[in-house]
Amino acid sequence: MGNIFAIRPGTSKDKQPIGMGSHLDTQPAGGRYDGILGVQAALEVLRTLHENNVQTHCPVALIDWTNEEGARFPGAMMCSGVWSTKSATSLEDCYEVKDSEGCTMRKALQDIGYLGETPCDYRENGLESYFELHIEQGPKLESANKKVGVVTGVQGMKWFSVRCSGREGHSGTTPMDQRSDALVTAARFVAAVSETAKATSLGVATVGVINNDTQSQATIPSGVEFIIDIRCSTDQILEELCTAIFKSFDEIIQRENDGTSYDIVRTWGLPESIFHEDCIQAVRSAAINEVGEAQIMDIKSSAGHDAAWCSTVVKSSMIFVPSKDGISHNPAEYTTPEDCTLGAQVLLQAVLSYDKGCSPD
Amino acid sequence: MGNIFAIRPGTSKDKQPIGMGSHLDTQPAGGRYDGILGVQAALEVLRTLHENNVQTHCPVALIDWTNEEGARFPGAMMCSGVWSTKSATSLEDCYEVKDSEGCTMRKALQDIGYLGETPCDYRENGLESYFELHIEQGPKLESANKKVGVVTGVQGMKWFSVRCSGREGHSGTTPMDQRSDALVTAARFVAAVSETAKATSLGVATVGVINNDTQSQATIPSGVEFIIDIRCSTDQILEELCTAIFKSFDEIIQRENDGTSYDIVRTWGLPESIFHEDCIQAVRSAAINEVGEAQIMDIKSSAGHDAAWCSTVVKSSMIFVPSKDGISHNPAEYTTPEDCTLGAQVLLQAVLSYDKGCSPD
Repeated sequence: MGNIFAIRPGTSKDKQPIGMGSHLDTQPAGGRYDGILGVQAALEVLRTLHENNVQTHCPVALIDWTNEEGARFPGAMMCSGVWSTKSATSLEDCYEVKDSEGCTMRKALQDIGYLGETPCDYRENGLESYFELHIEQGPKLESANKKVGVVTGVQGMKWFSVRCSGREGHSGTTPMDQRSDALVTAARFVAAVSETAKATSLGVATVGVINNDTQSQATIPSGVEFIIDIRCSTDQILEELCTAIFKSFDEIIQRENDGTSYDIVRTWGLPESIFHEDCIQAVRSAAINEVGEAQIMDIKSSAGHDAAWCSTVVKSSMIFVPSKDGISHNPAEYTTPEDCTLGAQVLLQAVLSYDKGCSPD
Repeated sequence: MGNIFAIRPGTSKDKQPIGMGSHLDTQPAGGRYDGILGVQAALEVLRTLHENNVQTHCPVALIDWTNEEGARFPGAMMCSGVWSTKSATSLEDCYEVKDSEGCTMRKALQDIGYLGETPCDYRENGLESYFELHIEQGPKLESANKKVGVVTGVQGMKWFSVRCSGREGHSGTTPMDQRSDALVTAARFVAAVSETAKATSLGVATVGVINNDTQSQATIPSGVEFIIDIRCSTDQILEELCTAIFKSFDEIIQRENDGTSYDIVRTWGLPESIFHEDCIQAVRSAAINEVGEAQIMDIKSSAGHDAAWCSTVVKSSMIFVPSKDGISHNPAEYTTPEDCTLGAQVLLQAVLSYDKGCSPD
């Protein structure tokens, strides 16, 4: 899948590498930190180990996971998902995914020489554990005036594709009360997604993609498709919010009774992740060493990360550093150089602390 | 502009042609009658005159107007508008309009050899009068159990491009109460367009085109654009409905107070048209001769037609025949062969009746 593993050997012949990494791809209008910080910091850790002739017991790996955002090839955290073998989408399925210009993932990898021979499977190319430094992408650290987030897990998330169907008609001649307008129904649904998430306080729900089949000024739309992204702190709460949103759709259809209808397909999901205490503890002690207990907080990630898939097969945790104004997936995304440095320092110390626990000495 | 005029000479050396015609282009998911019937029937009229050696006083012209739907090159009734010289969009403006693949109108005409040398201007290539046969595209004739509509005018219409602006953000980490989601605001607007038109009963309003800048599942949309098509029986009522719709937008912005905003640009308009009594009378008498007074009705067109622009510079009227279930801009569009024949017959008789009025005998 084009995942890149750069491994620095350890003294042990038996141990698998302690992984560090994230992803280099971004959203179409994303910023410069989401993912990239985690890869750059891992590179800095490897350099620091090298320049200081530090011998670790376990090998240490820098990893760049391909297509985390799913922005070019639909399907977020695609390639860590394949590596974990726990994603519903197999390697062969992923190879056939197409970008908006019809190019498959397989062809894109082939064209850049990244359709490698190393199996993309944790059982053949495994890790001892996995640590990921990432910007928070939300406002919690900044609001609480904390410097480091010790990440204990990732919330559950699901994506649904919703298709509203109506009846095409002429925009001038079709009386308002004889219309079956798929876009008006889709519009009511999009508003309901936001209003239901707000009213229930169960989590967040977003429509980020919408497509209208006809796209003609003078034609009443008969087919509109949109994608909902729903995220909650646990899988059970996620189910509750999904149910509430779909109930609001049914209420709209019944109330309007205009002949429009809808179908829902679940397109993607990431179960709630609970990180491993060994790794959480390695991050926590490293963070306390760097900035003291008053400056850190435990946090659950609201965004999906490659660490979520990794945690299904190896011990994992993450380190968060603050995002200015909580903004991400936006060119205004910003983390200070000092906070980036601090994150890299905590990553280094967490890896060394974990490695120490593996050492027979 | 690629308009096609096929002129059969009359006996008079001074008179300009009596025009008959419509358009051959369709909506992306349009039917087989909208426009095409008017051109085919005009061809049949020319053939009938020829086969029966009928000498008319005025020349008689078959006209196919280019790009009436504005489906490929945005801007409905584009080329009859240029010919009339009364449209706000000039010939040079129209040449620069691009299709969705970036091809200009000028290039498209050039490529098929239709960038002709005949001036597209009624003052240089004029008509004595203009008759257009068209399917009704609405349910009025069918509901009233009538066979022929004598069209007395065309309602006024305006198109507006609305741009909603918000702030990009991560769909997982941005709390619901800190969002400025342009698509949620656009969705509320789209629903309000429909609800305001329904509640006021002033006319019809439709959103047929919507575009979201980011189109990424995990990004809160910051820019969404859509087009509103508003039509009312008179220009004054049209102004009232536009005002009511924009007022509903302001109310949404004030009520939600989520930092989203909007801009509106008027992209296109067609003033209310009132057809000429001479032509209306020619159509009416022809229709009465064919089916009797009980089977005809006066009707105002809810759809725009090339006859609307023609009527600004020459005497004009139209003939409507019934549309099954009032459906148009839809592959299910249907008019019976008998009604198509009847329409062509009324067109022939209206042209001959008008021509008789021009004859010195």
